[in-house]
Amino acid sequence: MLRMSTLLLRTLRDDPADAEVASHRLLVRAGYVRRISAGIYSWLPLGYLTFRNIERVVREEMDAAGFQEVHFPSMLPKEPYEETNRWEEYGPDLFRLKDRKGNDYLLGPTHEEMFTLMVKGEYSSYKDLPLSIYQIQTKFRDEPRPRSGIIRGREFVMKDSYSFDMDEAGLEISYQKHREAYVKTFKRLGLSFNIVAAMAGAMGGSKSEEFLAPCPTGEDTYVLCEKCGYAANVEAMVTKTSPYVGDAPAALEVFDSPNTPTIDSLVDLLNAKFGGGYSADLTLKNVMLMADEKAISVLVPGDREVDLKRLGANLSGVQELRLFEDADFEKFPGLVKGYIGPQDAKKFGITIYADPRVVPGSHWVTGANEKDKHARFVTNGRDFDVDAYLEAAEVRAGDLCPKCDNPVIIDRAIEIGHIFQLGRKYAQALNLTVLDQNGKSQVVTMGSYGIGVSRAVAAIAEQTHDEIGLSWPREIAPADVHLVATGKDEAIFETAEKLAHELESKGLRVMFDDRKEPSAGVKFKDAELIGIPYIVIVGKALAEGKLELRVRKSGEKSEISAATAGEEIYSIVTSASSITA
Amino acid sequence: MLRMSTLLLRTLRDDPADAEVASHRLLVRAGYVRRISAGIYSWLPLGYLTFRNIERVVREEMDAAGFQEVHFPSMLPKEPYEETNRWEEYGPDLFRLKDRKGNDYLLGPTHEEMFTLMVKGEYSSYKDLPLSIYQIQTKFRDEPRPRSGIIRGREFVMKDSYSFDMDEAGLEISYQKHREAYVKTFKRLGLSFNIVAAMAGAMGGSKSEEFLAPCPTGEDTYVLCEKCGYAANVEAMVTKTSPYVGDAPAALEVFDSPNTPTIDSLVDLLNAKFGGGYSADLTLKNVMLMADEKAISVLVPGDREVDLKRLGANLSGVQELRLFEDADFEKFPGLVKGYIGPQDAKKFGITIYADPRVVPGSHWVTGANEKDKHARFVTNGRDFDVDAYLEAAEVRAGDLCPKCDNPVIIDRAIEIGHIFQLGRKYAQALNLTVLDQNGKSQVVTMGSYGIGVSRAVAAIAEQTHDEIGLSWPREIAPADVHLVATGKDEAIFETAEKLAHELESKGLRVMFDDRKEPSAGVKFKDAELIGIPYIVIVGKALAEGKLELRVRKSGEKSEISAATAGEEIYSIVTSASSITA
Repeated sequence: MLRMSTLLLRTLRDDPADAEVASHRLLVRAGYVRRISAGIYSWLPLGYLTFRNIERVVREEMDAAGFQEVHFPSMLPKEPYEETNRWEEYGPDLFRLKDRKGNDYLLGPTHEEMFTLMVKGEYSSYKDLPLSIYQIQTKFRDEPRPRSGIIRGREFVMKDSYSFDMDEAGLEISYQKHREAYVKTFKRLGLSFNIVAAMAGAMGGSKSEEFLAPCPTGEDTYVLCEKCGYAANVEAMVTKTSPYVGDAPAALEVFDSPNTPTIDSLVDLLNAKFGGGYSADLTLKNVMLMADEKAISVLVPGDREVDLKRLGANLSGVQELRLFEDADFEKFPGLVKGYIGPQDAKKFGITIYADPRVVPGSHWVTGANEKDKHARFVTNGRDFDVDAYLEAAEVRAGDLCPKCDNPVIIDRAIEIGHIFQLGRKYAQALNLTVLDQNGKSQVVTMGSYGIGVSRAVAAIAEQTHDEIGLSWPREIAPADVHLVATGKDEAIFETAEKLAHELESKGLRVMFDDRKEPSAGVKFKDAELIGIPYIVIVGKALAEGKLELRVRKSGEKSEISAATAGEEIYSIVTSASSITA
Repeated sequence: MLRMSTLLLRTLRDDPADAEVASHRLLVRAGYVRRISAGIYSWLPLGYLTFRNIERVVREEMDAAGFQEVHFPSMLPKEPYEETNRWEEYGPDLFRLKDRKGNDYLLGPTHEEMFTLMVKGEYSSYKDLPLSIYQIQTKFRDEPRPRSGIIRGREFVMKDSYSFDMDEAGLEISYQKHREAYVKTFKRLGLSFNIVAAMAGAMGGSKSEEFLAPCPTGEDTYVLCEKCGYAANVEAMVTKTSPYVGDAPAALEVFDSPNTPTIDSLVDLLNAKFGGGYSADLTLKNVMLMADEKAISVLVPGDREVDLKRLGANLSGVQELRLFEDADFEKFPGLVKGYIGPQDAKKFGITIYADPRVVPGSHWVTGANEKDKHARFVTNGRDFDVDAYLEAAEVRAGDLCPKCDNPVIIDRAIEIGHIFQLGRKYAQALNLTVLDQNGKSQVVTMGSYGIGVSRAVAAIAEQTHDEIGLSWPREIAPADVHLVATGKDEAIFETAEKLAHELESKGLRVMFDDRKEPSAGVKFKDAELIGIPYIVIVGKALAEGKLELRVRKSGEKSEISAATAGEEIYSIVTSASSITA
């Protein structure tokens, strides 16, 4: 039993100064977590109970799926991370340290290398596979901007799994098993979520999906089609295109366009000069970038910006991506800033990428590669060639769903899980091979799967709180029932004490507010802030043989008879599903 | 169910090259742990199950005692550790690192500072106390010589608790509650242990006891009286003394003693010169030391050495202790090396400490502070004065128990727990005060209590293994029953499979050796090595309706009827106590 008279818990009336999001604000105010340093938190008793409930659900679902639990250290030697090149690649996000002998170590930000080496150490044959193993472990990442409390911390707990298979078909099966286990896990946690297509990104590999918990203050932006259910994070959104169907374009025509530094001024000039009908989406922007110090041009319709994050995710193998600076333009004297067109790209030796909307045969108004001159009827395939099409333009609400043509919405969310087909990158780098049926050595293919366990505490808080406090699903809550005794009457406290024991003997977890000093109002406010799903009040009405039961989420109140309270409460609590409680 | 056909487990036939102790050897061979780096290990599935069983027992006992679980980060900011001076004091044992902004952090070796600050942050009144809180957390210490596998690692898991009280009486109650909870915990873990008096040492504070698990390869040495049960670690052993009862000593007499560089040669000379009756314990050694660069002399009977660890633990406030070197002797030209006596100490300005055996009124043969001369009848209180008595001499088996005069034995053990009354050191340094009943600010007094959770895996292995493998108490074992199907007969595997499910449905945890390839012999050897308490064999005897049950610990074998096997096994397993299984 949790007794508020002795529980290490002091609720706060005021929001912490550094809290930007509701979960952070409420988890601090309700006495669940405390900040130790930027992105580093400690857990008070209520917070750790909640955390452990989530950890238990995650573990139970992983075990139920047949995944085996292992555990790695946090402090890891440098060598394996050098073999995969991540000691360098991770950059300043990696916490590095030396031991007393000067040997290099890191604090594990993820454990791909260690999982790979563990399997390499134990297994040697195709008969040993498939295998899925997981751990629930503390991770360390030196985030440039730790924020939102425990949502983006520098020390946090993740469940990370890896699957090991002989081939792609096996990997696909392991991937689907994890996907199903994740769906079950997040449902049990009471989270509403979308599974969105994602880019594998820096981790290498191919197929990848994210589990996103919608939340207005979430850091992740994603696209959702409310008609067919298509969902993708912004990096992975596929542009819907249709082939060019107009007349064959007229011949390329260069025209004077002084004083048109912006797309808007260019459109005005076009409409004035050619009698209307022009809009920004008929013009073509030539965005010049340096990709690992190699010049590239990205063509996007004039009404869209290039989304560097989206471009980066789709431009594989590129580490550093930045817009042209003046010094870069100086290296290409043929490029007239503000008047660039793709017509002469071959001359300049620049690779041309285009947004998929720049379909073959389409014609555009664009720069004429001469000061104060633009050209129209500049036609893809006739006047210029595209080296490769690439998702590069910003995504907007109202863009068409690539599956069903319905306009999509854009929503914010917290990433709570990520699954992806890692492939052979780590197995290759660390030489994880097994003998196949023909006795031939084969590199194993891997999948990688993560759940943010400590982050889930905040994600659930974000989705379930209301204006007066936290409001946990029962399975996650630090207790089932928050029993409040009010007033000064000894008989009230005795009845409440007896009821608390009765409920516990029935298997319910009870938080008992047995404090004598605070007023009833303070106790109710605390109960609402703490967010245990059922609040039972033993107070003045006891004289008439009545107690009150409040459902925290709905605010619904009902009278129950003191004589049969134990049984009544038990039946109400256990008959409700944990998610709707 | 654990299935050996899919379990990430490869037992090893050979001992690992670096393993010095049985637990290390067997935990590696049986596939429980793997070495990642010096003193840093990962857990394979069987190992982590065992670890988590121990963690569960520890948590249940802490919760049962009313202690509240919290959780701190591993990465801690420097500032609080500077306020207590431990950032420096810890020396090279502390792992230090910097974040991307250059701020200093450490990896928590213990969490006194954080616990103190947590209570300071929440509490302010005497009404809030007493409080006991704990965590189960990973600790990091850069041990100079990590060894014995997971017994002395650099990353390991501890349960650490702290108690907070207003006064010594409260602290004593909290201390006893922890002591009782520890006794229950270690009993449930199946450990045999002694509670021995210890010095608080570097942590400050007063009363302190260690829980030591006797083990021939243990690192800790302690004294045990088999008659009355008195136990103390060597630092804390109290010397039994009796007052001087002989005649009043004759006057101090200086005599020639050339060529007597050793106690033995001195005793020979004494017996030759004065007609016998002399032994080494009648002579007095003057051991010169530098304590934080201040010269001290320690007097011990000639038959004993000074034990520097013991002396250090008893000489409070001294950081560095070392024997005199030649350079030190040069600073005290009056001290004649080999011929020092305490008679002229005052003249030299040296503090004189004495072993308690140098009782007041006793007389000794010692140096005469002149080359080639000794003196006899040198009497304590007449010819020299002792500034303070101190436990400094080595302890030996056969020394008398301070409680009952019985000769003690000296034994080796692994430290599995430590409890001590920390006092106000940390509360003072970090200003943890609360208002007392008179509204006056009072510094809180603390207790500190630790259990080595990961180390307990090894300690239990050390105490319970035999020459053929591990042999776990049931509560700790990764499963209750190790079910082995042998041969190639499908019917045998089907029966075993059904039995495995039946046992699981009864609530037993089953490890099922469902592998087809290994021989029966290999499977039995694996079962013996892995150490699950009951081994059930489904083999050829099934044709006669028989299975075999082996008790791993006793080696006892019995036949059971296949028809009623589920019930029989269940009743045997659950009727035995977990400790004797």
